[in-house]
Amino acid sequence: MSPMTRRQMLARSAAVFAGGVLLKEVGEAQGAPPPPSAGNQRPGADAINRHLPVHTPNVENLPWKIVDGVKVFHLIAEPVRHELAPGLRVDGWGYNGRVHGPTIEAVEGDRVRIYVTNRLPEPTSVHWHGILLPNGMDGVAGLNQRPIPPGETYRYEFTLRQHGTHMYHPHFDEMTQMAMGMMGLFIIHPRDSRAYRVDQDFALLLSEWKIQVGTSRPDPGEMVDFNILTMNGRAFPGTEPLLVRQGEKVRIRLVNLSAMSHHPIHLHGYKFLVTATDGGKIPPSAQWPETTVLVPVGSSRDIEFNADEPGDWALHCHMTHHLMNQMGHDIPNMIGMDPSGLDEKIQRFLPGYMTMGHTGMGGMGTMGMPVPRNSIPMLGGEGPFGHIDMAGMFTIVKVHPTRPAPDDWYEHPPGTVAEPAPEQDLRRDGIKTG
Amino acid sequence: MSPMTRRQMLARSAAVFAGGVLLKEVGEAQGAPPPPSAGNQRPGADAINRHLPVHTPNVENLPWKIVDGVKVFHLIAEPVRHELAPGLRVDGWGYNGRVHGPTIEAVEGDRVRIYVTNRLPEPTSVHWHGILLPNGMDGVAGLNQRPIPPGETYRYEFTLRQHGTHMYHPHFDEMTQMAMGMMGLFIIHPRDSRAYRVDQDFALLLSEWKIQVGTSRPDPGEMVDFNILTMNGRAFPGTEPLLVRQGEKVRIRLVNLSAMSHHPIHLHGYKFLVTATDGGKIPPSAQWPETTVLVPVGSSRDIEFNADEPGDWALHCHMTHHLMNQMGHDIPNMIGMDPSGLDEKIQRFLPGYMTMGHTGMGGMGTMGMPVPRNSIPMLGGEGPFGHIDMAGMFTIVKVHPTRPAPDDWYEHPPGTVAEPAPEQDLRRDGIKTG
Amino acid sequence: MSPMTRRQMLARSAAVFAGGVLLKEVGEAQGAPPPPSAGNQRPGADAINRHLPVHTPNVENLPWKIVDGVKVFHLIAEPVRHELAPGLRVDGWGYNGRVHGPTIEAVEGDRVRIYVTNRLPEPTSVHWHGILLPNGMDGVAGLNQRPIPPGETYRYEFTLRQHGTHMYHPHFDEMTQMAMGMMGLFIIHPRDSRAYRVDQDFALLLSEWKIQVGTSRPDPGEMVDFNILTMNGRAFPGTEPLLVRQGEKVRIRLVNLSAMSHHPIHLHGYKFLVTATDGGKIPPSAQWPETTVLVPVGSSRDIEFNADEPGDWALHCHMTHHLMNQMGHDIPNMIGMDPSGLDEKIQRFLPGYMTMGHTGMGGMGTMGMPVPRNSIPMLGGEGPFGHIDMAGMFTIVKVHPTRPAPDDWYEHPPGTVAEPAPEQDLRRDGIKTG
Repeated sequence: MSPMTRRQMLARSAAVFAGGVLLKEVGEAQGAPPPPSAGNQRPGADAINRHLPVHTPNVENLPWKIVDGVKVFHLIAEPVRHELAPGLRVDGWGYNGRVHGPTIEAVEGDRVRIYVTNRLPEPTSVHWHGILLPNGMDGVAGLNQRPIPPGETYRYEFTLRQHGTHMYHPHFDEMTQMAMGMMGLFIIHPRDSRAYRVDQDFALLLSEWKIQVGTSRPDPGEMVDFNILTMNGRAFPGTEPLLVRQGEKVRIRLVNLSAMSHHPIHLHGYKFLVTATDGGKIPPSAQWPETTVLVPVGSSRDIEFNADEPGDWALHCHMTHHLMNQMGHDIPNMIGMDPSGLDEKIQRFLPGYMTMGHTGMGGMGTMGMPVPRNSIPMLGGEGPFGHIDMAGMFTIVKVHPTRPAPDDWYEHPPGTVAEPAPEQDLRRDGIKTG
Repeated sequence: MSPMTRRQMLARSAAVFAGGVLLKEVGEAQGAPPPPSAGNQRPGADAINRHLPVHTPNVENLPWKIVDGVKVFHLIAEPVRHELAPGLRVDGWGYNGRVHGPTIEAVEGDRVRIYVTNRLPEPTSVHWHGILLPNGMDGVAGLNQRPIPPGETYRYEFTLRQHGTHMYHPHFDEMTQMAMGMMGLFIIHPRDSRAYRVDQDFALLLSEWKIQVGTSRPDPGEMVDFNILTMNGRAFPGTEPLLVRQGEKVRIRLVNLSAMSHHPIHLHGYKFLVTATDGGKIPPSAQWPETTVLVPVGSSRDIEFNADEPGDWALHCHMTHHLMNQMGHDIPNMIGMDPSGLDEKIQRFLPGYMTMGHTGMGGMGTMGMPVPRNSIPMLGGEGPFGHIDMAGMFTIVKVHPTRPAPDDWYEHPPGTVAEPAPEQDLRRDGIKTG
Repeated sequence: MSPMTRRQMLARSAAVFAGGVLLKEVGEAQGAPPPPSAGNQRPGADAINRHLPVHTPNVENLPWKIVDGVKVFHLIAEPVRHELAPGLRVDGWGYNGRVHGPTIEAVEGDRVRIYVTNRLPEPTSVHWHGILLPNGMDGVAGLNQRPIPPGETYRYEFTLRQHGTHMYHPHFDEMTQMAMGMMGLFIIHPRDSRAYRVDQDFALLLSEWKIQVGTSRPDPGEMVDFNILTMNGRAFPGTEPLLVRQGEKVRIRLVNLSAMSHHPIHLHGYKFLVTATDGGKIPPSAQWPETTVLVPVGSSRDIEFNADEPGDWALHCHMTHHLMNQMGHDIPNMIGMDPSGLDEKIQRFLPGYMTMGHTGMGGMGTMGMPVPRNSIPMLGGEGPFGHIDMAGMFTIVKVHPTRPAPDDWYEHPPGTVAEPAPEQDLRRDGIKTG
């Protein structure tokens, strides 16, 4: 085992342990989960012992165990109180105490048995999106199975005949149930763990919410104006950064189960190749380069790049309203207006209100305007150069010469940061600024 | 002729006959149409005699005849009363008594002459989308021709220099005319009928409508909140299923002439390759695999797969609001609310009303709530396992060991359907459900 | 030098001169700008002397000069009054007196130094979208640099390590600043000017605006219902046509910095290949053919075709509401209504009003209905066959046997235009129109 691989396994141990705790909550008899694939007696067992685990920031993996050579999982659909970002909790629906559900990780060739217990107030079902399986296991209620009534547990079982980036979500009342948060990732590694090898393998599940300011219940009826945009169920500044050591080969699996929006995800500082969809690997002859990849609803896109350029790089949806949290929506257009007199009128209804935006909306994250209970400012988080005035579907890829901790910031070599132009440079270059 | 080909030709005969009836309605002198390409005296005649006809579920083909070696068609733009789904009729605009228009089917090398008669209350024109032709035949009113006034008949004529999946639609007041239903498919087969051969060749034209509940006129002013989503002018449960015998090679031509939405079409149970756009075939080196293909507005995507896995498989737009009919829109968020007292207030205005949705919206298709005149429930159709609570842009691909009839359901082998987990299984696997 | 190249250089001279005037305005000391790359002493100098300049219709190039082997540019972020289309001016924000900003054109291997002066009422920054550079030059305020305060000038400097179609835009309060018009193109030519050679190289920057009828300030809060759609900051009929001589090889670089919409751009009369994204060239094995290319938000798509078919060809977004200007939005559905009596009621509020749309909306561009101050009719421009009833994101590619002037229209050979069908043709072909 190479030193790097050992470090990676240590880095994963926290997640495995957390997964274990989770399983104990939902099924006491199971005890601590095995390390990845320990005890797997089936073909593919060697492979799974060596594959690089996928890392889903802010999300746990679903524990499992081997029974008679079958990998057994247990999903529990249930109401969940979840923090979308610091200060904003949502009363959603999820799996195993989580919004979204935990990541299912398996290996091509595995036979999986997945029990689904329904603790919701209405029926549900689970569709294994993109996975080849017998028709009766496909999860479309009414078409492939009866819906799972509240209180009951259904059993799904099939053999994984492929590898790739897939999802699971309800296919009963899916408009409501997915808007409430019910979805998760289902990652299948290739049987040959040496195939398609990378050094860091991340997965981000994109979704969108309508949560009226001051409320905690998602509105499944919203069709166009979503006001909370998330990666793995978290909105910036609640998103966990992607931590990379300079020189590593990185894969990011981008999966979109939003209700309506095809998200164009832009990575700063790099070109990357689009190497797979949920239909499988794209052959090298067909791969195309991008800096922004469109991830359509119901699709996945794996992207890969060599992290050779150090820095803290933004990774975000390029739709500008998806970089706003709640307070950035339904705002009147104040640009160029004179707000005098307006504030006192509004303060009768919303104490502490101050008109903003008449010179643009930058800096609204730092103005200290009070926000209603259970809501978050429209913008931002703290960065190494002051306030980052973005929110929503935004995270940071930290590529440092040594593997960074989550709170580390890149230290730029002198002269490599955009700064005020020195007077002598302006003179030498003949630039008039007045 | 192989047995399979003979069966296919018999299967098509109903469509050919229906087309003939249609032509008699619009031009009595023409008599019964010839079988496909009979009498074609031009180069390409052999090819067209052998090509596999494309099947556009719920849509007829446009009849034609050969005059002096030219294939002659006649399109009549006119108001049409059309059933979008059982119970919902729309006063739209279409062609030849149909919404959408009939499919034009031809062969590379054909010279086509298409007469367009305008029976609308305003001018129109026809653009042959994606087809290479002389500039004056391109149909953009004002730029390439004068608009066709009401009551007049214009003549288009050009030679087909390509093959592929194309469309026709107005290019005068197109926002209105396309929102009213004016569009159709234009399929050109390759001259060599052995090229790009499949066993089943389907085409689905995607579009979107705004029809206020209880009205019958589409609203062309709607920009974002479409409430009827259709495949070939029909919303589920009005869509005709795609019927396939297990083992056949299948092509589905997905064409999107919606006003605003790029539809991500998800096929269950299969990976497929994207093999062509309306710009032509994608070379094999550039084809990519998907389980969901994004079909942008004004685009076509041919997908192909081998139907080796039997079952009844969902094929639908993955945007969750596009799986709802009218009643699923503009609904208040009831989740978690106590509806007591609310119903009687609303019943003053809408007799028979009952609050729904406070435990989710599943099952709304079966509750028997009265709907306004000329409207349809938000959800559903009957399936083999009860109610399928989806609607809109949804259909079913039926892959059976023998070619299915439209009403056949797949019979699953024992043990291959998700069902309640037996007690002994839960015990053996150590699953606690309480 | 071939005759064609000489003509091309002459054709560009106006643009170069205009750029020179512009630079004088913003920095008097710089004098007339050099011809493209004259005086460049650095590696790559030969290449830049020979590369074909990119042509951005309706937009100037940003002048530059060489100082000690570094190519020096100066961008000034400032409020700008800009004409979006004849009759509609907007009080936006742009660069160097322009909305959008001038095009930056450079060559792979160049070292560039770009001064950015902020004359806005709030801070700003510049992100060089898709360009590989040191992390501190990437322009995300808070993450990569401090925001540039009003009145200050910051300096960016980096070496271009790639070639391709890129953009620049703010990354501070970008929802507001981009909605106000702040964006521009950054085109990098390959060092070897013979690589990827075309005869005409165009670039179109797509964006979208919300400008309430009768106002002049864009509304950055709009999320879905944009009512002005532009190419290079101009809405049809304000867009400058693309002028091509028949037989030339043409590239069009389509770049989308809209807030929310992925635009499907449809070219009439041609198939084309998608040859590059802002991530770089797509290898020939991976290129796919289209007649409509989806350009996602934050992306670029280079398309290429041989202009062998003469004519005036439409090039436009296929989303039908993006072919409307302001007056085409928020309109009631009048189709089939009897407007008698309605007009006089509305005329109390809007003198000169007449109900339109009850027989469709075609011809609204020519009805002479008065529009509010500083607004434009919903439709159109004059074409060779009367009124072109489209607007917004629409332009014309003029492919003529000799290079056309902007106002030239293609003269169609006799018999190649769709026209009223002669009586004898209808009789011969057995077409009944009554």
